[in-house]
Amino acid sequence: MTAPANDTVFTWAAPPLKFGLGALDEIGGELAASRARRVLVLTDPGVRNTGIPARVQDRIRAAGIECEVFDDVAVEPTDVSIDLAVKWAREKDWDAFVAVGGGSTIDTAKAVNLLTTHDGELLDYVTPPIGAGRVPDGPVKPLIAVPTTAGTGSESTTICVVDLLSMHLKAGVSHPRLRPTLALVDPLTTVSMPSQVTAASGMDVLSHALESYTAVRFDTKPAPADPMRRPAFCGSNPISDVWCEMALKLVGSHLRAAVHNGRDLDARYQMALASTYAGTGFGNAGTHLPHANAYPIAGMAQGYRAHGYPEMPMVPHGQAVAATAPAVFAWTYPADPERHLRAAELLSGATFTRTDGAEALPHVLRELMADIDMPSGLSAFGYGEHHIESLVDGTLKQTRQLAVVPRQLDRAAAADIFRTSL
Amino acid sequence: MTAPANDTVFTWAAPPLKFGLGALDEIGGELAASRARRVLVLTDPGVRNTGIPARVQDRIRAAGIECEVFDDVAVEPTDVSIDLAVKWAREKDWDAFVAVGGGSTIDTAKAVNLLTTHDGELLDYVTPPIGAGRVPDGPVKPLIAVPTTAGTGSESTTICVVDLLSMHLKAGVSHPRLRPTLALVDPLTTVSMPSQVTAASGMDVLSHALESYTAVRFDTKPAPADPMRRPAFCGSNPISDVWCEMALKLVGSHLRAAVHNGRDLDARYQMALASTYAGTGFGNAGTHLPHANAYPIAGMAQGYRAHGYPEMPMVPHGQAVAATAPAVFAWTYPADPERHLRAAELLSGATFTRTDGAEALPHVLRELMADIDMPSGLSAFGYGEHHIESLVDGTLKQTRQLAVVPRQLDRAAAADIFRTSL
Ligand SMILES: [Fe+2]
Ligand SMILES: [Fe+2]
Repeated sequence: MTAPANDTVFTWAAPPLKFGLGALDEIGGELAASRARRVLVLTDPGVRNTGIPARVQDRIRAAGIECEVFDDVAVEPTDVSIDLAVKWAREKDWDAFVAVGGGSTIDTAKAVNLLTTHDGELLDYVTPPIGAGRVPDGPVKPLIAVPTTAGTGSESTTICVVDLLSMHLKAGVSHPRLRPTLALVDPLTTVSMPSQVTAASGMDVLSHALESYTAVRFDTKPAPADPMRRPAFCGSNPISDVWCEMALKLVGSHLRAAVHNGRDLDARYQMALASTYAGTGFGNAGTHLPHANAYPIAGMAQGYRAHGYPEMPMVPHGQAVAATAPAVFAWTYPADPERHLRAAELLSGATFTRTDGAEALPHVLRELMADIDMPSGLSAFGYGEHHIESLVDGTLKQTRQLAVVPRQLDRAAAADIFRTSL
Repeated sequence: MTAPANDTVFTWAAPPLKFGLGALDEIGGELAASRARRVLVLTDPGVRNTGIPARVQDRIRAAGIECEVFDDVAVEPTDVSIDLAVKWAREKDWDAFVAVGGGSTIDTAKAVNLLTTHDGELLDYVTPPIGAGRVPDGPVKPLIAVPTTAGTGSESTTICVVDLLSMHLKAGVSHPRLRPTLALVDPLTTVSMPSQVTAASGMDVLSHALESYTAVRFDTKPAPADPMRRPAFCGSNPISDVWCEMALKLVGSHLRAAVHNGRDLDARYQMALASTYAGTGFGNAGTHLPHANAYPIAGMAQGYRAHGYPEMPMVPHGQAVAATAPAVFAWTYPADPERHLRAAELLSGATFTRTDGAEALPHVLRELMADIDMPSGLSAFGYGEHHIESLVDGTLKQTRQLAVVPRQLDRAAAADIFRTSL
């Protein structure tokens, strides 16, 4: 028996982009160009309070287009919250959708777009075995994503992540039709973001870059039995690598300033650019262990409330991702020492060599996180030694992410990473 | 009266990409996924002789899809050659198109896609004042571009360039609907390319990168009166810059090897990647003077025959572009010395400073062109001093390109550039 051949092919895709100061003012023109006559803007209560969605509505109406706003998107969407939004949206006909906010809003808009153009409910479309894996067989409507957090990648992806409350599970719906038709990025929309949200979103971008950069290489994975059914994450590749390096450099140079002075327009601009590099550049290279760990961390948190976020118990996605990142990258170091050292250099501007070893990158990450007042460990969220087995269980369910972790992960290694991160 | 404000917004777009050794074998699956039942493959006689189009046809048929091949695409398409292809294609119904070849084939396929899904003729859709500027108001069919020359950017663009024989003019049709739905890049398809074609295509990639990199910055141009009608070329910007730098580095490191030994698979792979960086990365940053000059150079050539190309008088696009590039970049140097020196460094691996001045980049270009046996001046194509005024006339008609030239161009400067390039 011969070993299966490795894959030789990678894929990449990103939506068209409009980027710049004031780009948001062009939203009416964009929708008019797509001949929309009736548009639904989706947002969450926090972003509504910034006044940005009202301005979007004004611009759309000024283009002669009917426009309503649904401002009840949940931070960290659930099957229940999406069901509410879908019920509301199904009452009327829409020619196009606009999502103004972070990943939660853009994900919700994808689900609303899908479920107002197709029948059935969300679970029908969720990836098996959790859902029925139904494929949207008809066109959906144009969806313009206006990311306001300089942190999500959702404006570029085909994925909608949702918390299935009854099952205590995070699950995903993914299909090329769900990708937004335009990412409209205006750094001015990020100026009013609270510093804690800036910090967590920035760490999310950073971790997307680090995880894509250190993911298993596309050509060291076995070739798929059916090339039309490659896994969702294709692994690191020469296109993604370029963008990861650029994003790491920008985050390392500008995140501190954006957190400490939200009015620093240059820092806001560079962080919006870093997030856009992440969104348009990484394609589907893939995230791995920090994101796999983030799902149980966010899902099992009981009483934690994050400053700068809505008054409800939750661990923001960026905080959940960052919490185990230093321990993860100490553990993944042997898979590709050069890349880990290079990442530490890009983030810090300092020079590192093999003698700095596995701790170089974690050290740079911990320094940055301390500087921007990120929670300093899982204990901050209320976790202790006795939660580790359940956290590991949650991580081991994230098969999409685990497929591109660059080292073989077992229970013991996963538990060690959580323990070090307490 | 105040000066008009500068633009603050840039745009970018690229088709989805599938890249890798053997990627071509997945073409049947890709078409089946789009539910095509009857597919037309377009190619030219030179590429047909490589056997690649027959392999594509086999793969498509193996996926249970009817497939015919039109192998009469003209190198440097004209209104007459496109009309022939359209007449042929209009005889039947097609669900999808596949273009296998260089820019000529991909451009022809765009026109065939447009004119089999819409009535009228090519000139109706050509940009005014030459054509009627009609806009395709309905959907077109899926078009998969399989670039085999590691040199065109056509697999990523919305543009079809055509020679209007009766008017002795190059003209363009451009619309977002014309962009291919997938760029399928398989470095193995470039292995059989003759060395002269490899050289010219490689210089085309190089010049796309250099021109996009040195084009007017998007935020130093005046804001458009109507933001929905930005010029076709938006100028250099932070997304495009990253890709340009990467492409310059790869071309500088691998073009010589690809020209001198076509079987050097690593060189072929890296050049296919460089071309892909160019295609997916530059968006519509824009080409400027070397491309503006290339149109009259190619259009007015009388008796020149290029080795490795069909037996007909023509100046290949890459040769026409490269012919004035050294003189152009000596002239554009003062617009941004740092960028010109950086480009020379990326191409050569050497270090340059201000004391090397305007001649550093032209020197690097001339050395590379000599090493890969490119024609060494316009005189090689049969041009002399007495052609300069007509060449300048031709250049000054290329308004799209001239809008992003980084210095004010007048007749005298254009003539000087042609004279230096003789
Ligand atoms: Fe994330
Ligand atoms: Fe070109």
